[in-house]
Amino acid sequence: MSEVTTGRRRPGRRPGSADTRGEIMAAARRTFAEKGFDKATIRGIAREAGVDPALVHHYFTSKEGLFVAAMELPVNPEEIIPLLVAGPREETGERLVRFILTITADAQARQPVLALMRTAMTNEQVVGMIREFMTHALLEKVGEALGVSPLRMEAAFAQMFGVVLVRYVIRLEPIASVGIEELVALLAPTVQRYIDGT
Amino acid sequence: MSEVTTGRRRPGRRPGSADTRGEIMAAARRTFAEKGFDKATIRGIAREAGVDPALVHHYFTSKEGLFVAAMELPVNPEEIIPLLVAGPREETGERLVRFILTITADAQARQPVLALMRTAMTNEQVVGMIREFMTHALLEKVGEALGVSPLRMEAAFAQMFGVVLVRYVIRLEPIASVGIEELVALLAPTVQRYIDGT
Repeated sequence: MSEVTTGRRRPGRRPGSADTRGEIMAAARRTFAEKGFDKATIRGIAREAGVDPALVHHYFTSKEGLFVAAMELPVNPEEIIPLLVAGPREETGERLVRFILTITADAQARQPVLALMRTAMTNEQVVGMIREFMTHALLEKVGEALGVSPLRMEAAFAQMFGVVLVRYVIRLEPIASVGIEELVALLAPTVQRYIDGT
Repeated sequence: MSEVTTGRRRPGRRPGSADTRGEIMAAARRTFAEKGFDKATIRGIAREAGVDPALVHHYFTSKEGLFVAAMELPVNPEEIIPLLVAGPREETGERLVRFILTITADAQARQPVLALMRTAMTNEQVVGMIREFMTHALLEKVGEALGVSPLRMEAAFAQMFGVVLVRYVIRLEPIASVGIEELVALLAPTVQRYIDGT
């Protein structure tokens, strides 16, 4: 709360100043945590940051884009969909598994995701925010693009989420050390089966 | 540490007294967290609790049994193996998936598991302890009993671990509300494929 006050009253701050983008992201983090992803609006976040909503659109394009930037997520769901629907349908599982394993192999990219998960394990508000974002910004959209039911999308997500946790948080061997391609060969048929509905 | 001192010096406490079992479990929690699962010994835990090692064996049978009791885990890995190797090999995945989903459907049974995971997300010592227990008391033994490689056991574990987290922590719908048998039908072929090595 003190941050809000400081942000609003700092003398000489104006839209477009060097830290406006950062202040919008800080306002977004507070708003998403308080209201969840679904109920938060660009207008409300702009008001919280003391800027014009058009500026928020200018910097972040969409509420999804603002969430991704504010939480420092390594990828925007909107970028995943073209990647998944391009290329042969029977290799979709392989593309998805390789994409997730490649992104999370970068320690800097996975750190904010794991930090968010840590908070979620003990904070109901953060869980709610993640649940809404995952449901409406990620799984529903990918599922619709691929024609896969929500339950099957969630089973695929659970497989990859579990692998990332076992590889990078619990660090069981050999899964923590094995190469990406060996894991792709092992996991892609699982994800493909969920996609195929068989 | 104050607990240790209190436990050791309380006048009139003797082996077999009403809270000896609880004091052994408290000593076990401290020792497992400090030394990890592999390096902790029944002898060392008995010393920490100020009791004879024979008493620890009497109450808990094995180091695995003591770990399960101390962490309030809902199931002892030693009980899982007979369940998995009994019955047709081609239904092993189904038995394993149904078993995990049935146990975790009980809020009281899954609460200590989730509590342990919460701590693990932020505590390296606890992660180390869980990693050693999972590797040497659970996955290696189940894998050896089934003739399944560690990597494949870990992929199967990651699937089920992810499902439990998505169902009970993130609570995505519909996976949070769907019945056990629908999930068994969806997930058993995945686990069976890891077991079959195909």
